Amino acid sequence: MKGAEELDRDDPLAEYREHFVGAESPLVYFDGNSLGRPLKVTGPRLERFVEEEWGGRLIRGWDEGWFELPEVIGDDLGRLALGAGPGQTVVGDSTTVLLYKLLRAAVALRPGRTEIVLDRDNFPTDRFVAEGVAKECGLTLRWIEVDTRAGVTADQLAAVLGDRTAVVLLSHVAYRSAWLADVPLLTRMTHDAGALVLWDLCHSAGAVPVALDAWDVDLAVGCTYKYLNGGPGSPAFCYVAGRLLDDLTQPIQGWMGATDPFLMGPTYRPAPGVRRMLSGTPPIVGMIALQDMLALLEKAGIEAVRAKSVALTEHAIALTDRDLAGVEVASPRDPERRGGHVTLQHPRMREVTAVLWRRDVLPDYRDPGGLRLGLSPLSTSYAEVERGIAAVAAALAG
Amino acid sequence: MKGAEELDRDDPLAEYREHFVGAESPLVYFDGNSLGRPLKVTGPRLERFVEEEWGGRLIRGWDEGWFELPEVIGDDLGRLALGAGPGQTVVGDSTTVLLYKLLRAAVALRPGRTEIVLDRDNFPTDRFVAEGVAKECGLTLRWIEVDTRAGVTADQLAAVLGDRTAVVLLSHVAYRSAWLADVPLLTRMTHDAGALVLWDLCHSAGAVPVALDAWDVDLAVGCTYKYLNGGPGSPAFCYVAGRLLDDLTQPIQGWMGATDPFLMGPTYRPAPGVRRMLSGTPPIVGMIALQDMLALLEKAGIEAVRAKSVALTEHAIALTDRDLAGVEVASPRDPERRGGHVTLQHPRMREVTAVLWRRDVLPDYRDPGGLRLGLSPLSTSYAEVERGIAAVAAALAG
Repeated sequence: MKGAEELDRDDPLAEYREHFVGAESPLVYFDGNSLGRPLKVTGPRLERFVEEEWGGRLIRGWDEGWFELPEVIGDDLGRLALGAGPGQTVVGDSTTVLLYKLLRAAVALRPGRTEIVLDRDNFPTDRFVAEGVAKECGLTLRWIEVDTRAGVTADQLAAVLGDRTAVVLLSHVAYRSAWLADVPLLTRMTHDAGALVLWDLCHSAGAVPVALDAWDVDLAVGCTYKYLNGGPGSPAFCYVAGRLLDDLTQPIQGWMGATDPFLMGPTYRPAPGVRRMLSGTPPIVGMIALQDMLALLEKAGIEAVRAKSVALTEHAIALTDRDLAGVEVASPRDPERRGGHVTLQHPRMREVTAVLWRRDVLPDYRDPGGLRLGLSPLSTSYAEVERGIAAVAAALAG
Repeated sequence: MKGAEELDRDDPLAEYREHFVGAESPLVYFDGNSLGRPLKVTGPRLERFVEEEWGGRLIRGWDEGWFELPEVIGDDLGRLALGAGPGQTVVGDSTTVLLYKLLRAAVALRPGRTEIVLDRDNFPTDRFVAEGVAKECGLTLRWIEVDTRAGVTADQLAAVLGDRTAVVLLSHVAYRSAWLADVPLLTRMTHDAGALVLWDLCHSAGAVPVALDAWDVDLAVGCTYKYLNGGPGSPAFCYVAGRLLDDLTQPIQGWMGATDPFLMGPTYRPAPGVRRMLSGTPPIVGMIALQDMLALLEKAGIEAVRAKSVALTEHAIALTDRDLAGVEVASPRDPERRGGHVTLQHPRMREVTAVLWRRDVLPDYRDPGGLRLGLSPLSTSYAEVERGIAAVAAALAG
């Protein structure tokens, strides 16, 4: 096994780490899959934004670019990370709110069908939103029981799909196991059953290449504060395939998603295109950090990011096998089926996490017994991975 | 009539202007009711937030205050500007999304009642949201036709209220005319009809004192980027009277509004209290500027802010009467019935607005023929009002 020094020396993306706040700190950050580090340019740029754009342009800012920003950033994100052509992605709201709008939109596009398919191990907000939508629309939730150390397979999906299925709601990367779903296959199966698919990209966007157009995905949603470094609570994004846009309705009819909002017209008419997914005034201040990260992603390229992500997780797994006796790798060992994090299972991981935090090593913990190492490709070094795994070993021994 | 020099000299809040970006600029800003100016402390504080809190504390920030921030800021806002006791106000989402949640919640609390009452001149997003909720819940919109130079009166409301009324949705200050509704009276009438009232405070919060608890209001919503200087697209707030909270449900069931979100439980259980109004991850970066403004509001006091607001609008009206021949004041002349802006009516106001903008005088324009002067009490000087009215006179003459 190559050592960290060699791996960092040979890493074509090594220099990117210097772009992030905290690069020089001895702290080990294993939670880039919950909240990415800020870029060094972001603080000063936010200050300039306040002074010059907000403070200097004032209300004129809306005419000078803010109004279109949800679509402009959406298109950039689509091009750089999602494999989405222009006019299908917008930024705004939270993941939860966008999930609600998309799920309601999907149900409306499949009248007469009575089931929403999802898996028992999907992220809570996905399950909670689906539960609410099912209740209000008189639908039934059809659950896929999954192995929490893996994710949804084709066989499992086939067992529940049918002519009752309105929508299938799945995560691209499972938040616990890091299982990387076979999006094109599961999407094709869903279409063969006459249903729509809604993919949650929260744990993949920015770390794992996505090809929404090529995979023929219908709808997708994701957050921007993990591998896209948008900051705590930065706005989410949603994607609607162009072929669905004309017929798409969503329940939260607001002025910013209406045709000609400043006409202040008597009746809501949805804006043409994906802008109809918007509702209220777009959160401009919250989009600044995301823009900075997209500029960096454009330079690095999502394929190179993925290559480093795979190498980082491979290295973490190799070190675990070598140095962490009794710890089980609860993520797929096949890199083709693994996202950007690695979950290490051990009955004592809850207390281990607490010890690590006191020692400035920050993974996160998910019940039951799962320590997650979220390795953010542009800001994580191999040396950081080694220091972190050594700290886990010390905490387990202590 | 006193001159601007004397008025500014005697203004007890005059020094507050220096706290805002652009105080030294000759630009005349009459659009504080669309987007307030930033505070000078906000840019540097956002930079520090990125470096020290987000970048330094990383994921630990959620345990160290971010998680509770929607409630903490909500309580501050309630105490300083809304007359709301603790535990009834939260910050998050956009006004439109919160309107949707509150309106759905209200309808659910009045089963069997079939009408939503609102006025034809309410802000588009309020009307559009109500239209959508009525459609999906099988309700009827019952419209109040209003004089667009005034607002909803008790007689007008009495004419449409009845045992079919589920909810009355009204604005505290009308966005066009600045009509200031009699909230306690209209609320009492609504309650006498067995219905709930939802007040939109977008055009009053931060400029006009509100007494939600004393007025026995049920539900309220408002934005923070006008007189609360939160920045473009800053998160909105909502209020739910404590007496309604136990029975309140809202449709966008997300993990951040659930009991014990990190339990990642199988089923959504709404959080106790007003936190159940939350859905997704709170927009932390977007709340920083609002906090700065609340600190300033605490020093100035909302009653003093209102006194200056009334004096500013009185001065603008007196100057209009004296200097703007042919221009009609389309806002109430009684300060008891007028909010923080003044609308000046003239057939040529659309082109006048364009001329003014080129001369760095920034009012906004609302059809038909309405030039709005949004006077933000803590950042607007009397001299600014005089320069602005002189510029309107010149543009009308030109």
